[in-house]
Amino acid sequence: MTEKKNKVFIATSLDGFIADKDQGIEWLNSFPEINEVDTGYEAFISKIDALVMGRTTFETVLNFGIEWPYKKPVFVLSNRLKKVPDELSGSVQLVRGTLDEILKQIHNQGHHNLYIDGGKTIQSFLKEELIDEMVITTIPILLGSGIPLFGELSKPLKFKCIETTLFFDKVVQNRFLRFEN
Amino acid sequence: MTEKKNKVFIATSLDGFIADKDQGIEWLNSFPEINEVDTGYEAFISKIDALVMGRTTFETVLNFGIEWPYKKPVFVLSNRLKKVPDELSGSVQLVRGTLDEILKQIHNQGHHNLYIDGGKTIQSFLKEELIDEMVITTIPILLGSGIPLFGELSKPLKFKCIETTLFFDKVVQNRFLRFEN
Repeated sequence: MTEKKNKVFIATSLDGFIADKDQGIEWLNSFPEINEVDTGYEAFISKIDALVMGRTTFETVLNFGIEWPYKKPVFVLSNRLKKVPDELSGSVQLVRGTLDEILKQIHNQGHHNLYIDGGKTIQSFLKEELIDEMVITTIPILLGSGIPLFGELSKPLKFKCIETTLFFDKVVQNRFLRFEN
Repeated sequence: MTEKKNKVFIATSLDGFIADKDQGIEWLNSFPEINEVDTGYEAFISKIDALVMGRTTFETVLNFGIEWPYKKPVFVLSNRLKKVPDELSGSVQLVRGTLDEILKQIHNQGHHNLYIDGGKTIQSFLKEELIDEMVITTIPILLGSGIPLFGELSKPLKFKCIETTLFFDKVVQNRFLRFEN
């Protein structure tokens, strides 16, 4: 059976937020030099088969007003959306149901290495113990409030940090694998 | 003028908690091998002149039922406590007032490099931009809820990560310095 992995690649503030209290992400550019280097995103994305994100993240990306940035298939979790913009119909599929049902549907299309993105989506995957790996880039700014990456869980989940990388002696990136013992 | 520094050395869960929702810290031992090595605490403590902590942390340490663990002077912030246990009268001083008043009092006793400890105390120092350095050891467990290290701020605060250390490919420790530009 093909190994199936659900992975996260995300940046947070030092206090664990993925957006500030006004949903803003300008603070991601607090250290603009970081945008000039490869922080492993290309290598990460090259190894995944498809992306899974929530409606909020999908609409945020649409509102960037840039060209659709993903070359891999994107699955958008939404009970509300009825269709995707025509020009994305080849790239984006709407999915709904339980995470197990959604994953089965995605795996059946041959996508086994998945990039799970967006705060609520990541939290719901974590709640069901469905995240295998997380690469978290910490932008060392304390925002004081905002939208947190992590949320409530039914029970504690152990990971292990297997890699840490410092960029410009400013930004730190840690790679965590799920660790069950 | 002698340089004055306020430093933090603390462990948090991956989701940023310093204690679980029942105030428990057993999860700090999720990776017991970490207790067998020097994670820099001795070097850190050797360079500070005194500790500053809140009443909650002070009482937590007292309740450990162990010998008083600090060889350096400890200042306890409390408006409520009237006196410290007799056997600690030479080691612990109660202080009250604004942080500026408290710091002046401590500096006047010749203590300039301070270890700021305890969630509420760290948060109040951060709110007044009084933290210069933070060594944060991340125990890679998601608790889901608990007592957070960080809290609300009047404005975002920038740091830079200047050092990262991996222990046993499990636990990661990052050192942050206040960064103003």
